[in-house]
Amino acid sequence: MQNRTYTADAEPGDSVTVAGWVHEVRDLGGIAFLILRDKSGKIQIKLEKDEMDEELVETGLDVARESVVSVSGDVKEEPRAPTGVEVVPEDIDVMAEADTQLPLDPSGKVDAELSTRLDNRTLDLRKDEVKAVFEIRAEILRSVRDAFRGLNATEINTPKIVATGTEGGTELFPITYFGQEAFMNQSPQLFKQLMVGSGLERVFEVGPIFRAEEHNTPRHLNEATSIDFESAFFDHTEAMDACEHVVKAAYEGVAENCQRELETLGLAEEFEVPEGEFPRLTYEEAIERINATGELDEQLVWGDDLPTEGERALGEDVGEHYFITDWPSEIKPFYIKDHDDDETLSTGFDMMHPRMELVSGGQREHRFEHLVAGFEQQGLDPDQFEYYTKMFKYGMPPHAGWGLGGERLVMTMLGLDNIREAVLFPRDRQRLSP
Amino acid sequence: MQNRTYTADAEPGDSVTVAGWVHEVRDLGGIAFLILRDKSGKIQIKLEKDEMDEELVETGLDVARESVVSVSGDVKEEPRAPTGVEVVPEDIDVMAEADTQLPLDPSGKVDAELSTRLDNRTLDLRKDEVKAVFEIRAEILRSVRDAFRGLNATEINTPKIVATGTEGGTELFPITYFGQEAFMNQSPQLFKQLMVGSGLERVFEVGPIFRAEEHNTPRHLNEATSIDFESAFFDHTEAMDACEHVVKAAYEGVAENCQRELETLGLAEEFEVPEGEFPRLTYEEAIERINATGELDEQLVWGDDLPTEGERALGEDVGEHYFITDWPSEIKPFYIKDHDDDETLSTGFDMMHPRMELVSGGQREHRFEHLVAGFEQQGLDPDQFEYYTKMFKYGMPPHAGWGLGGERLVMTMLGLDNIREAVLFPRDRQRLSP
Repeated sequence: MQNRTYTADAEPGDSVTVAGWVHEVRDLGGIAFLILRDKSGKIQIKLEKDEMDEELVETGLDVARESVVSVSGDVKEEPRAPTGVEVVPEDIDVMAEADTQLPLDPSGKVDAELSTRLDNRTLDLRKDEVKAVFEIRAEILRSVRDAFRGLNATEINTPKIVATGTEGGTELFPITYFGQEAFMNQSPQLFKQLMVGSGLERVFEVGPIFRAEEHNTPRHLNEATSIDFESAFFDHTEAMDACEHVVKAAYEGVAENCQRELETLGLAEEFEVPEGEFPRLTYEEAIERINATGELDEQLVWGDDLPTEGERALGEDVGEHYFITDWPSEIKPFYIKDHDDDETLSTGFDMMHPRMELVSGGQREHRFEHLVAGFEQQGLDPDQFEYYTKMFKYGMPPHAGWGLGGERLVMTMLGLDNIREAVLFPRDRQRLSP
Repeated sequence: MQNRTYTADAEPGDSVTVAGWVHEVRDLGGIAFLILRDKSGKIQIKLEKDEMDEELVETGLDVARESVVSVSGDVKEEPRAPTGVEVVPEDIDVMAEADTQLPLDPSGKVDAELSTRLDNRTLDLRKDEVKAVFEIRAEILRSVRDAFRGLNATEINTPKIVATGTEGGTELFPITYFGQEAFMNQSPQLFKQLMVGSGLERVFEVGPIFRAEEHNTPRHLNEATSIDFESAFFDHTEAMDACEHVVKAAYEGVAENCQRELETLGLAEEFEVPEGEFPRLTYEEAIERINATGELDEQLVWGDDLPTEGERALGEDVGEHYFITDWPSEIKPFYIKDHDDDETLSTGFDMMHPRMELVSGGQREHRFEHLVAGFEQQGLDPDQFEYYTKMFKYGMPPHAGWGLGGERLVMTMLGLDNIREAVLFPRDRQRLSP
């Protein structure tokens, strides 16, 4: 439809063809209004029963809600219309008639369960507030990539079909690959590390990751979008600086380019780009502060993982994005480097939103012997990972990086209750379709 | 390394710390030069045996090629140095010593087989001309996404774990998904169509696709990057316009932002952004022109698929990007719409580079009954695809779109011999690692 005008661009005096979905039909007797909805907004179509062609009026009145129509006519000023203008139609073409029974009401007047919404995403995304989430998600990815390029990082794409997992065979989905055992990649970790040893030095990737975790919570997905960064010659503090920069850039992009969507979501007033440095708490400070909140039945001691309630209590206490640094080495992955002056302390860090963990990162172990020893300590066969470890013999610079959960970033930025609201077609234990 | 300076930014008079790989050591007797290489370029480090600290000189002379070092010192003008400057070192720190035996020579002086290169991508990407390919690949993806946004398309991410393939169970990699049968997605086709029926209307995705094809050719991959576009209210000609626009944008982005990389590849002179409209040949014209070349042993007749040699002959004849339109319906997928006035003619199109097919697209069948009938004719059970077909009952607009092979775009733009040169870690029947 070369000649189609978006409803938002229809100006009084124009002769236009608009096309979209029938949002509503209001029959007031002698006059009726058809509200047409498209990507850009809505527009009123006026139907005057006695003054217009009978067939035209009938077409407009009979068409079922959510049918696709195109309407040609003149745009007039009409202060009483929702957008101040209306189209006086000369032609109405029903391009796709909708069933009168819809599994979901796109007008949003009738609430739907999340599972019904996910089963009918096409209809669900006709709601302004659902569409807004995904317009914002797209802007987040755009501004994140832009920020990475500003940091002189090169975009890479690493394989999703792999021979081994990052951390061995646990939590991997097995694939049959031409008769060989293979897996879906749970993280680009090993591949992005291989690339910091290349001439690219500093890389990023935005792509799917797959985890066969049996979690069924509002904040876990079995297929998720990972935003990964890795840089040669960075230590963990520089990786944290980059992390803070990229997360802020995502907020800035949304603040600059998604005001309409934020308004739709009722967030325009309260939306804030994080300012200042994110506080950096050591693990030790973190457990002290959690213990001090009195929210946990048992006091945390050194070496404990932080339980979900602990994270929540600390998040409320801190009240903004923050880092937790200097974890006990024993609870961080072996490929994360320990502090040179204290082997019990890891350079690993997490970046937290008050509601949940967003990022996990650290400086990596780049010394061949230490890395191989790490695989062995983990009970993994270093030979299986030779494709990865051998490159550490040929000049692997010190490096650091992190992975950021894309859906968690969307979810926490927009205050969504369930991570499934941040992905078009979520995958979990129960949901494989659509 | 907060204080690190890229070699390309080192100016005479600066005191710098540069870091990177030892590209070369040239020992001329009383004086020696160490060439340091980093992401930005190379720089000469001068070692004067009698005038500098003995240990410093020894460190510089003894370090194996491809080791990672950082060098602190003053930058001096030196017309005889490759970049016109050199660093007079005060300190040389060997950060990661490399083995003296390398499986691949990153200086590029010794040619390596593609399989050796792929086994050692870290070293392979230390070569300027290999790194250049992937810097250009990243720029292609950036400019393609930018062009899509200019077309008012929204970026989406569709699932890679799916219950059914686009075209049934053939050529799919099976996954074990919590005890259920599932597959890796071979195309975002069905999901992007579901989204044109949503409020997003026009969408794009850049993501991995997986095909269990047993091909083993220089232009097929089992895991590839698909650049997908789909728009409501577009017919096939408008989809072709969008395709042409996006492919040109990729060339323009590279021309504008990758001059250095094009020079490295020896392409700076010959590189051309396609100009004018891509010729649009009907299938009928295409087979006539192929037959006229006399390159095929047997003449093609209506209904034949175009054989590879036919495509090649036609490509040489046309000599630029072109479309082939109006295919026989019988050789295009059932979800592509036929012409309204001739059911034997499909609205499907291919966009070709003279060397090979880049894009496949068309207007889609948006009428529920026709779509369901198509599944049946294809021998597929429409019930299995109900998650997809049922949305066509609720107001699915006419729509069109296409999929562009990301690696083929890189390969044809840069004249690479093998598609495996356009992907960091290719997956084929033989190659699952690294």
